Amino acid sequence: MAADPRFHPAAGPQSLAAILAAAGATADAPADVTFEGVASLSEAGPREVSFFDRDRMAAALAATRAGAVILRPEAAGRLPPGCIAIRAAHPALAFARVAALFHPAPPPNGIRHPTAVIAATARLAPDVSVGPFAVIGEGAEIGAGSVIHAHAVIGPGVVLGPGSVVHAHASISHAICGARVVLHPGARVGQEGFGFVPDEKGRYVTMPQLGRVILGDDVQVGANACIDRGTLEDTVIGPGTRIDNLVQIGHNCRLGEGCILAGQAGLSGSVIAEDRVVLAGQAGIADHVRLGRGARIGAQAGIMSDVPPGTDVIGTPGRPVRSFMREVATLRRLAAAGRPKNEQDRT
Amino acid sequence: MAADPRFHPAAGPQSLAAILAAAGATADAPADVTFEGVASLSEAGPREVSFFDRDRMAAALAATRAGAVILRPEAAGRLPPGCIAIRAAHPALAFARVAALFHPAPPPNGIRHPTAVIAATARLAPDVSVGPFAVIGEGAEIGAGSVIHAHAVIGPGVVLGPGSVVHAHASISHAICGARVVLHPGARVGQEGFGFVPDEKGRYVTMPQLGRVILGDDVQVGANACIDRGTLEDTVIGPGTRIDNLVQIGHNCRLGEGCILAGQAGLSGSVIAEDRVVLAGQAGIADHVRLGRGARIGAQAGIMSDVPPGTDVIGTPGRPVRSFMREVATLRRLAAAGRPKNEQDRT
Amino acid sequence: MAADPRFHPAAGPQSLAAILAAAGATADAPADVTFEGVASLSEAGPREVSFFDRDRMAAALAATRAGAVILRPEAAGRLPPGCIAIRAAHPALAFARVAALFHPAPPPNGIRHPTAVIAATARLAPDVSVGPFAVIGEGAEIGAGSVIHAHAVIGPGVVLGPGSVVHAHASISHAICGARVVLHPGARVGQEGFGFVPDEKGRYVTMPQLGRVILGDDVQVGANACIDRGTLEDTVIGPGTRIDNLVQIGHNCRLGEGCILAGQAGLSGSVIAEDRVVLAGQAGIADHVRLGRGARIGAQAGIMSDVPPGTDVIGTPGRPVRSFMREVATLRRLAAAGRPKNEQDRT
Repeated sequence: MAADPRFHPAAGPQSLAAILAAAGATADAPADVTFEGVASLSEAGPREVSFFDRDRMAAALAATRAGAVILRPEAAGRLPPGCIAIRAAHPALAFARVAALFHPAPPPNGIRHPTAVIAATARLAPDVSVGPFAVIGEGAEIGAGSVIHAHAVIGPGVVLGPGSVVHAHASISHAICGARVVLHPGARVGQEGFGFVPDEKGRYVTMPQLGRVILGDDVQVGANACIDRGTLEDTVIGPGTRIDNLVQIGHNCRLGEGCILAGQAGLSGSVIAEDRVVLAGQAGIADHVRLGRGARIGAQAGIMSDVPPGTDVIGTPGRPVRSFMREVATLRRLAAAGRPKNEQDRT
Repeated sequence: MAADPRFHPAAGPQSLAAILAAAGATADAPADVTFEGVASLSEAGPREVSFFDRDRMAAALAATRAGAVILRPEAAGRLPPGCIAIRAAHPALAFARVAALFHPAPPPNGIRHPTAVIAATARLAPDVSVGPFAVIGEGAEIGAGSVIHAHAVIGPGVVLGPGSVVHAHASISHAICGARVVLHPGARVGQEGFGFVPDEKGRYVTMPQLGRVILGDDVQVGANACIDRGTLEDTVIGPGTRIDNLVQIGHNCRLGEGCILAGQAGLSGSVIAEDRVVLAGQAGIADHVRLGRGARIGAQAGIMSDVPPGTDVIGTPGRPVRSFMREVATLRRLAAAGRPKNEQDRT
Repeated sequence: MAADPRFHPAAGPQSLAAILAAAGATADAPADVTFEGVASLSEAGPREVSFFDRDRMAAALAATRAGAVILRPEAAGRLPPGCIAIRAAHPALAFARVAALFHPAPPPNGIRHPTAVIAATARLAPDVSVGPFAVIGEGAEIGAGSVIHAHAVIGPGVVLGPGSVVHAHASISHAICGARVVLHPGARVGQEGFGFVPDEKGRYVTMPQLGRVILGDDVQVGANACIDRGTLEDTVIGPGTRIDNLVQIGHNCRLGEGCILAGQAGLSGSVIAEDRVVLAGQAGIADHVRLGRGARIGAQAGIMSDVPPGTDVIGTPGRPVRSFMREVATLRRLAAAGRPKNEQDRT
């Protein structure tokens, strides 16, 4: 079964030639064969294209009814008879491109819904679409090809580069963004950070949060995720970084290029993450910690000190994965053995 | 003190007969005695009904000024003199029904606020209420008795079964829902999942997310919780499943009937949870893990591998509760004893 | 570099006299010297004021180009030549006040945006500002000097004391609030708690949630944080308590004065936190636990039982920091040593 056309209308049939061009792939079949869409191995039919890149899916591959499957050249022999092999070095990447061929992102149409409140001094490229009840503040700038969905709130002075998408109910203020930034529904960018100091009587006095949020090109911020603006300097998210739902990024954090933060991960204030750092789900990083380039932080890890580049850590406090697993096994064995020998000796 | 009438207006006095009928309970008192509302044991007065079902509340029971208390038959003797015993096998359940008798959910009134933007092709049952600034997309269907509150956004083609409630600021897209679904404020359902693949230069290319979210009858989604739509297949939440605030459910997860996910729990992608699985707060489940029927996952547990049906696990990685507690005790003892014997021998 | 004037317009130059008055500080320099704004040590120029209060910033202090620096009297000798020392006992507090002098919170202007939907029976002080698409319900009361931003939803009967600020997309219902309460974007206050009981067939029946949320003076609720209303009694947040982004507070919790809950921390239902309790990020507290006055709960700690006043705990289950660290070290040593001696003896 292809994608539900109520939600994902397909851009008509596509020829194998077009598919190969999108995929950067090759196949031994007539270039004018056409397909209707894409689907998973188990749901695809003869008019659909699927892909295979993990051994976990081997049984689904052997049983697939797909008309064509994108896979590595060496896997072509595992296809059922009659199924066209589309050979690609990176099947998932090729499939992503083919799926986008069938389901291109709808371009903006330049329509501003009559209910939207757009400040007179805001500058929107002519083709920017603005949905119902969106609010765009004084002096905001929105680049060509951007789509602002219903109920989005773009604060005064915010800059969004070309090709950006702000989904329903997202809000952004005090922020300068590059091209193709995506804010998913309910994302919060640029609000006041969590900064205050006790006064002489112990009452908390807010430290004015006078910085901004800088989002590089192609940054995506997940649903209901939060990025606070900086206190005196800026909170910076490098180009291409992807932030999943419900992630928290405190004030003054600086993330490099191509980082990945999975769901519910959290950064306290002033964390530095160099390029291509990966945080798995629910990982937490203490304030002022530096994560070196390419460091990978395991799910639920609690990181209290710097992590060298290229290092994988897990646990609380974080440690190398091998150490963590050895500790888990050691403790399990000691507990199963009952009280340890050196204790038993004393009794 | 009864519920604050500014927020919870009561449906007038109720007779003991009506109360017993709602509760499925019995009492030795005149059927025409009336009560004004419900309250906790410590706050109830003579015109109010309370309930008792936990020994923790024994002192409050002994001191209560409530006019009647719902409790198990065997506890009736513990009531203060003059307080009517309403005997029920399941006091909390009976109380929930009596509380709903006094405070019924307001029925929809069929009023669409003039500011709401409802697409011409959306089909709403006649009695559906729609609040200010709600947006309902093309082709959406909303069943009888549903209430759409202020600022809700219902995407094109979305189906909501009868008796559904969408609270303020919730958004839903790419979704088909059964009856009596409730989305609490700020819930996010159906947005794009966190799927992408690196291209040849390491830049992330979004994998089109072409699936849907399927919510069964009676599913509830908590405030600011997120459920991403599937990649090629669907994200599915079985009937009766209750999801608390700030929970994250990644793309392609499939949950069975009657699951419970407490606050801030998180499921990575493609997790399978069979019927009646329970996740306590902040628990996290790695991708592709299967949780067997009735498995119970402790607070903050980090589950990296399948959990058999009916099993209780806790910790990271997850293990049986007894093992976890034994490990905690073992480590505490070893640490308290100072360096272990075999280390001391070497010095 | 001072704050970006697009986002943080400065209230003109300020004299040293005004700065000293705001800071409660002293300096040996002409009172009529003026400054343009505030900045960090590394970004400030000769027309800007900065501050120094942590040894971590010693290098930045030595190299600063700031015109004046707020610091403790004993640190004045560490300033570069020509930089004015502004001596204060609490430099960060003094700086917060000086920053607010340059960047005062914009006062409300009494303008109600024509798109806002304000119930006829709502009572707003004359100077309250209301942004586009805000919704204010029947009988709500909003005190003088409050600002309601775009898309905020204030439910029927809600009371907000004077000087409150409700940011974009925040929602509040079933709540009574003191003065100067701040709800950051997307905060959720007063929605139904997570309460239900299984019926005879195992289906969950909602327990009506008939309580309220009570927010004391000066409470702040972070972006996308959630506070559920009580079941029969109230959820109460004491004066001055600060709640960070994405925090979850379940029904019936009662927090004292001046508590601090950092990002993504979570309280199950009916937790008691006495005055000045601190929860670090991602900490979780089981239901019905009591945290004593001034208890400090470490990041990611999982607290299952009461914590005495003044105690610092960390880990899951929570334990004193010293014990936790000793256990971490003990386990690391045992695992590194390979299988323990008493196990080796048997092989």
